[in-house]
Amino acid sequence: MHVPNLNDITSAHERIKPFINYTPVLTSSSVNKILNIDLHLKCENFQKVGAFKFRGASNAIRLLNFENAQKGVTTHSSGNHAAALALAAKQLGVPAYIVMPENAPEIKKKAVAGYGAEITFCKPTLEAREETLEIVQKRTGATFIHPYDNFNIIAGQGTAAKELLEEIPDLNIVSAPIGGGGLMSGTAISAKSINPKIKVFGAEPLLADDAFRSFKSGELILAGPPQTIADGLLTSLSNLTFDIIKKNVDDIFTVSEESIIQAMRMIWERMKIIIEPSSAVPIAAILENKSKYAGQKVGIIISGGNVDLEKLPF
Amino acid sequence: MHVPNLNDITSAHERIKPFINYTPVLTSSSVNKILNIDLHLKCENFQKVGAFKFRGASNAIRLLNFENAQKGVTTHSSGNHAAALALAAKQLGVPAYIVMPENAPEIKKKAVAGYGAEITFCKPTLEAREETLEIVQKRTGATFIHPYDNFNIIAGQGTAAKELLEEIPDLNIVSAPIGGGGLMSGTAISAKSINPKIKVFGAEPLLADDAFRSFKSGELILAGPPQTIADGLLTSLSNLTFDIIKKNVDDIFTVSEESIIQAMRMIWERMKIIIEPSSAVPIAAILENKSKYAGQKVGIIISGGNVDLEKLPF
Repeated sequence: MHVPNLNDITSAHERIKPFINYTPVLTSSSVNKILNIDLHLKCENFQKVGAFKFRGASNAIRLLNFENAQKGVTTHSSGNHAAALALAAKQLGVPAYIVMPENAPEIKKKAVAGYGAEITFCKPTLEAREETLEIVQKRTGATFIHPYDNFNIIAGQGTAAKELLEEIPDLNIVSAPIGGGGLMSGTAISAKSINPKIKVFGAEPLLADDAFRSFKSGELILAGPPQTIADGLLTSLSNLTFDIIKKNVDDIFTVSEESIIQAMRMIWERMKIIIEPSSAVPIAAILENKSKYAGQKVGIIISGGNVDLEKLPF
Repeated sequence: MHVPNLNDITSAHERIKPFINYTPVLTSSSVNKILNIDLHLKCENFQKVGAFKFRGASNAIRLLNFENAQKGVTTHSSGNHAAALALAAKQLGVPAYIVMPENAPEIKKKAVAGYGAEITFCKPTLEAREETLEIVQKRTGATFIHPYDNFNIIAGQGTAAKELLEEIPDLNIVSAPIGGGGLMSGTAISAKSINPKIKVFGAEPLLADDAFRSFKSGELILAGPPQTIADGLLTSLSNLTFDIIKKNVDDIFTVSEESIIQAMRMIWERMKIIIEPSSAVPIAAILENKSKYAGQKVGIIISGGNVDLEKLPF
C-alpha cells in the first residue's frame, strides 16, 4: 500500500505553513501532579476551525490540479473535517460542497455555512451520506476529499506531531485519539520516523473500539453506530489507516465514557482550555493506565475544541 | 495618598517572577473581525490559581517581616483572592486563615482547602465576614491581607499590564474589569507610566456600577449587594483604589448582563479558552462601544478562568 513517509509530511508542512496556525504546546504542573507524568499538549484546539483537520484539508486541496480545483471539492462529514475543508476551500478560492447529516452539531453547521460552503443535509446514516455525496458530485464535478482514507490528508495531519517533536524532542510517548485513523496515522509516521524509539499509543472510547479490536485481531473490523460522547471518533478505520496503524502504533487503549468526561473536565478546570470529548480520550487512557505512563514524558495531540456549549456533560 | 508607582511595580515583578506563571498574550483573527479591532488578551486565566490575584498576593506575602510571616496571613474572600493567598502562603511555608462566605462557589472552596489553608465559613454579608475575620485574627495574630485596599497588592497586580506592554508596546488602549479596583489600579499605573499617551478604560457590569458612578460624580459611592453574573466584581472601590482610578483611568464603561454572557461565549467558542464572566466585562464594553474602539490596538487583562462548570449561563 502506498503510505506517506516523513518526506511527504515535511512537504505537506512547507505547503500549508503559511495558512495554518502554529499551535502552542501547553503544560500544567497540577495536571502533571495528578497523573504523575510530564505531559505536553499540542493544542490543535487553537488550530483554524478549532481542529487538526485543517492541516490535512489544506494539504489535500492545495495538491489539486487547476482543472479539478476550479470544479471544487466535496465531502460528507458531521463535524470538523467539513469546517476544515470549507475554510481551506475559501482560502484558496474554490467552491466547497459539504454533505452533512441533519443531526450534526449546530456549532458545526454554523461554522461550515460561515465559511461560505454549500451544505446539503441528509439522513444520519452512512448510506444516506454516501448517496447524497454521489448526487452532489455528479452535479458539480467536485473532487471528493475523504476525511481520512486519503494519502494527502494523512500527510497533512502528521504535521502536528512533527511540530510537537521539533519543540519537545525528548518525548518518550506520543498519543492521539483514533476515529477513522487519519490523525493517528500521521502522528505515528511522524513520531516513529523522527525517533524510532518513541512509543506510540492510540486511544479509543470503549463504546467505539473498532480500531482496538482490529488492532488486536489483525483484521479490519468496522464499527456499528457507536454511542460515545466522543463525537469525533464515530468512524471506522480504512484499509489505508489500518495498515499504517498496524505497523507504527505500539498499543491502543480503550476508555470508559466516565473517564473521558473526567479527563475533559480536569483539562477545562486545571488548564482553562476548551477541549472536545474526543481530545480527552488519550488523557482518559492515562487515567485508566497510570502505571504504564508513570514518570514518562508524554506528548498528546489535542485534536480539537469544538464543543456545543449547550450540551455539556458536566 | 501613598500610591504605588512604576518602580514599585518593577520591584514587585522582580520579587514574584520566580513564583508566578509568565502568561501568554493571545489573539484571534475571527474575534478581531467581529469586533473590528486588533485585540490582545493577557491571559491571567492561565496564571496560578487561575487568576491575576496570585500576583498581588505573592507580592504582599513576600514583603511581610519574619515575625509576621510566622504568624501567618488571613483574609476574607469569596473567590480568587482566597485561593491566591492560600497558595502564596503555601509556597512560602506560612499559615493561611481564610474566611469564606458559606455560599462561595464550590470550585473556590475546594481550591482553598487544596492549598492547605484553614477555612472559616461565615454568613454571606460584609458584616459577618469582617466580624469573623476579627475573631480569626485575635486567635492567630495573622496579618490581614486586604484583596485590593493594599499598596503591595496593587503593585503586584500591576505586573500583568507591565508584561503585556513589554510584549506588545504599541497598544493604543488598555482595559481591565473593575471590582474593588486593585487590578484596574495596577493596570492603569503600569500603562500610563510606560506610555502616557495610552488610553486606559475600565469596564463594569451595569448591575455593579459603583466605580462608574464614583468616577462620574467624583465621590466614592459604595455598592449595594449587586446581582451581576460577574462574581469577581461585587466589591466596591476603596479610597486608595478610587484615588488611583480617578487620576489614571480615562473612562469607565458599564455593560449589560447579556453583553457579558455574549462576550464570554464568543471567547470560549472562538478562542477555546475558559474565561470567567468578570473577564468578559471589558470585551462586552467593546461590543457595546464599537465606534470608540474601532481600528484600535487594544490590550485586555483577562482576569481569570475560574468558572463553576455546573452553573454556566449558556
